[in-house]
Amino acid sequence: MSKIVKFATLIVSSVLVLGACNGANVSVEKQVVNAKSNASSPIIEPHKNLNQKPIPLIIDRVGEHEVNVEMTAQITDIEITKDNLYKAWTFNGEAPGPVIVVNEGDTINFTLKNIDPAIPHSMDFHAVHASPSKDFIDVMPNESGSFTYPANNPGVFMYHCGTKPVLAHIANGMHGTIIVKPKNGYPTDSEIDREFVIVQNEWYKYNNLDDFTNGVPSNVVFAAKALKEGDLNTNGTVGALVDTPLLARVGDKIRIYVNNVGPNEVSSFHVVGTLFDTVYVDGNPFNLMKGLQTVMLPASGGAVVEFTVTKEGSYPIVTHQFNHVTKGAVGIIKVTKDGLDDSSPTMSH
Amino acid sequence: MSKIVKFATLIVSSVLVLGACNGANVSVEKQVVNAKSNASSPIIEPHKNLNQKPIPLIIDRVGEHEVNVEMTAQITDIEITKDNLYKAWTFNGEAPGPVIVVNEGDTINFTLKNIDPAIPHSMDFHAVHASPSKDFIDVMPNESGSFTYPANNPGVFMYHCGTKPVLAHIANGMHGTIIVKPKNGYPTDSEIDREFVIVQNEWYKYNNLDDFTNGVPSNVVFAAKALKEGDLNTNGTVGALVDTPLLARVGDKIRIYVNNVGPNEVSSFHVVGTLFDTVYVDGNPFNLMKGLQTVMLPASGGAVVEFTVTKEGSYPIVTHQFNHVTKGAVGIIKVTKDGLDDSSPTMSH
Amino acid sequence: MSKIVKFATLIVSSVLVLGACNGANVSVEKQVVNAKSNASSPIIEPHKNLNQKPIPLIIDRVGEHEVNVEMTAQITDIEITKDNLYKAWTFNGEAPGPVIVVNEGDTINFTLKNIDPAIPHSMDFHAVHASPSKDFIDVMPNESGSFTYPANNPGVFMYHCGTKPVLAHIANGMHGTIIVKPKNGYPTDSEIDREFVIVQNEWYKYNNLDDFTNGVPSNVVFAAKALKEGDLNTNGTVGALVDTPLLARVGDKIRIYVNNVGPNEVSSFHVVGTLFDTVYVDGNPFNLMKGLQTVMLPASGGAVVEFTVTKEGSYPIVTHQFNHVTKGAVGIIKVTKDGLDDSSPTMSH
Repeated sequence: MSKIVKFATLIVSSVLVLGACNGANVSVEKQVVNAKSNASSPIIEPHKNLNQKPIPLIIDRVGEHEVNVEMTAQITDIEITKDNLYKAWTFNGEAPGPVIVVNEGDTINFTLKNIDPAIPHSMDFHAVHASPSKDFIDVMPNESGSFTYPANNPGVFMYHCGTKPVLAHIANGMHGTIIVKPKNGYPTDSEIDREFVIVQNEWYKYNNLDDFTNGVPSNVVFAAKALKEGDLNTNGTVGALVDTPLLARVGDKIRIYVNNVGPNEVSSFHVVGTLFDTVYVDGNPFNLMKGLQTVMLPASGGAVVEFTVTKEGSYPIVTHQFNHVTKGAVGIIKVTKDGLDDSSPTMSH
Repeated sequence: MSKIVKFATLIVSSVLVLGACNGANVSVEKQVVNAKSNASSPIIEPHKNLNQKPIPLIIDRVGEHEVNVEMTAQITDIEITKDNLYKAWTFNGEAPGPVIVVNEGDTINFTLKNIDPAIPHSMDFHAVHASPSKDFIDVMPNESGSFTYPANNPGVFMYHCGTKPVLAHIANGMHGTIIVKPKNGYPTDSEIDREFVIVQNEWYKYNNLDDFTNGVPSNVVFAAKALKEGDLNTNGTVGALVDTPLLARVGDKIRIYVNNVGPNEVSSFHVVGTLFDTVYVDGNPFNLMKGLQTVMLPASGGAVVEFTVTKEGSYPIVTHQFNHVTKGAVGIIKVTKDGLDDSSPTMSH
Repeated sequence: MSKIVKFATLIVSSVLVLGACNGANVSVEKQVVNAKSNASSPIIEPHKNLNQKPIPLIIDRVGEHEVNVEMTAQITDIEITKDNLYKAWTFNGEAPGPVIVVNEGDTINFTLKNIDPAIPHSMDFHAVHASPSKDFIDVMPNESGSFTYPANNPGVFMYHCGTKPVLAHIANGMHGTIIVKPKNGYPTDSEIDREFVIVQNEWYKYNNLDDFTNGVPSNVVFAAKALKEGDLNTNGTVGALVDTPLLARVGDKIRIYVNNVGPNEVSSFHVVGTLFDTVYVDGNPFNLMKGLQTVMLPASGGAVVEFTVTKEGSYPIVTHQFNHVTKGAVGIIKVTKDGLDDSSPTMSH
């Protein structure tokens, strides 16, 4: 207990800043004098040598309009590049966290287990109506918190830890996507052959609030998150979606649920070689746009984008803010005759 | 007079740059060779020890479709943080300036009084049709200028000083919001319980054109601007909307007129714990989007966003570009049973 | 040939980064360890003293729905400012490249001639459906490549070189705009008096991948591209559209096809003194918005914007991210009684 208290002091001393007030305690540090000051934090003592095995997300439908969701806040090493393991603050040992899929109209019974031994964490679902100061509150180390939310709006929404300083919790890895499927589906549902979830996020210097606040990202990355068992599911690792492309068949109409979880940058999401026939801004069927080359995603923004791949080949996924491509924001959709990966060790690349 | 001329020389020498040409003189400096060079300017001599008392905005309706508006360009200290008073170039001693509300179809008879003893200022209303080189021209120190504009487009619009270098005038504080109410109202008017105006702006190093041009903001802030007498009306002060939250009642449908006046950054405007049921992009009733978690605002962009707060508690307002939250871009909507602030000195936070 | 191979080695050694994979070889460098490292490249040896005369774009309609387009990749000096000639990598000796106009439903027979003696180049049209790894592939120095594409989506689209590192090819000048005219026109076609094409791009330190990746732009500029012979056609030169304004007549309804080709920045496109009555996002007639003060353009994003100039005078065109105006992003629409330039040497500015 004394260790926790001690750590809490540590945190406060490094916070010169205003975080969004999602805690039970809604008073906010007012001293934001010099946001350009140095506020670097190395790995904190209780996290040293800690690498908690990913604990799977639990989703159980317990009623026609009711679903139980259990997530775990934990400290887990995430590969950003081959040479750089990042001791991330995560949901379920993934960064971005696992995708959650519910239906419009669902009640979500949510439990957050915090197995981080040192820091409180919390959950802020953009998909729900809630009292932030009551329903998105901190769960202490080695404790659990349970909350109930209505999810009445369809779309592609960000979730993230809302514990102060929020920027540190998001930038260290506590972000992900919750999809609320529209009650009556999308008008285009029957045309879709493949669905993927792509999440864009940035990485900065390790746990360095100054770099989070004033720096440029070290890496910008895409992760694929599995909609169902067996789907490709990656972390925000540079090259992950190039080494292991998404697969499709010639002629497929593809839907991507895309979400830009930031923490700081906007995204100009684009797929090379095609156009988005249909875009639903933030994933709401009402917000229809057609024929876009690129969709503008604010920080935290989402979209459903749909397009057809007409020929065999490799279709890069990028944000067209190309400095971010240089930093890793590229994936590949590999289109073959049969939708299978035709590459083999004997084929040279 | 010699003092003015001398100052004009000063200005020109520090301007390596192209400003938007709103002056009577539309010729523009062409030498923009090295925009990364240093161009720091301290407080200029005639502004030293000057702190002009805010002069209230004057709005008088003089006809069914005609309104007189008088504003004052003046030098006034604005609190950015508790420790940092910024000798701002302002409209009416506020930064952002006071909100102006007119009706679609109005003719605006506008007078700008410039009581800044040293620098010309001007007004560029995004809400109107005008000849920039005739109707948005410089008003000299200690002079007044009068102009007439039609306001035929409903929406939430930026206004700002358009005197060169425009970036310096905006970044030093000369920005604000003009709302043009739609002739037939918004389709959702009857559902709205509360209305607020929120303006986002950035602060940089004092009057430092190099930092304005190449730096990152020192602070990013929200101000509440009063729609009517008695409403909360603040400057762009870090923590202002946390210390004194906006108030609402459980179940209220809230409308925010939001405007991102920059000068440089885009905004990913978001309210924690809710979703925007209705968004009118730039405040035009035609530009309807539904169910957004976050609205993308370009620099100068506006929106009307509407949402319901379903439970008691504190709902943070942020831009989800979270490095900007760290720099101050957070406010609170406090939701109570009766819509009154239930906090008292005896309650601990 | 040995020279080419040698250069290829050079390129790879300076590429720490992932480029979008548009080449025949879709394998991608995985080592993106430190994107903040220095990767400056001066003018490469084969480009020294090279300044290839602009070779005009060739467009020939060869059928009701078929058009031949021939473009040239070449090395040509582009004036960024009076004192700064940039040895740009270009399409047809222009940067941005010449605007291409085709019709919805056209088949484009495209030939790229690469007269750059040292580097492969390629073409990625956002307007078409194609297999990036087959149809957007590298054309080697002194070679030609021919491809056929369907252009079935109306709009205002970016084109750019897709050779790795893509960021270097775009930032060095290989970008432009292709307009696909909608089959049934825009609903507002009959109201339009004048049409212009404006392209926004950024310039950085010469061929400096580190500055492209981590820096801020040295200059942000607008170019006018000719829709038909005799129209104003400029490069992305600071001041070009101030020295030689676009011309219009009092009362004209003006349409601008605008495209933000980046490579990195988003744009908040705005015209001072007016509002955009009509905006078609990405130029698709379906994506209609009304009464916008400013249109948000993602990197690569386009729009058709339409507005009326009601009075004589000068109307500045800007991105309202005003640090970019300071770096050059300003143009002028000069509105006169007769639409002619009334300035003369005897008139003082």
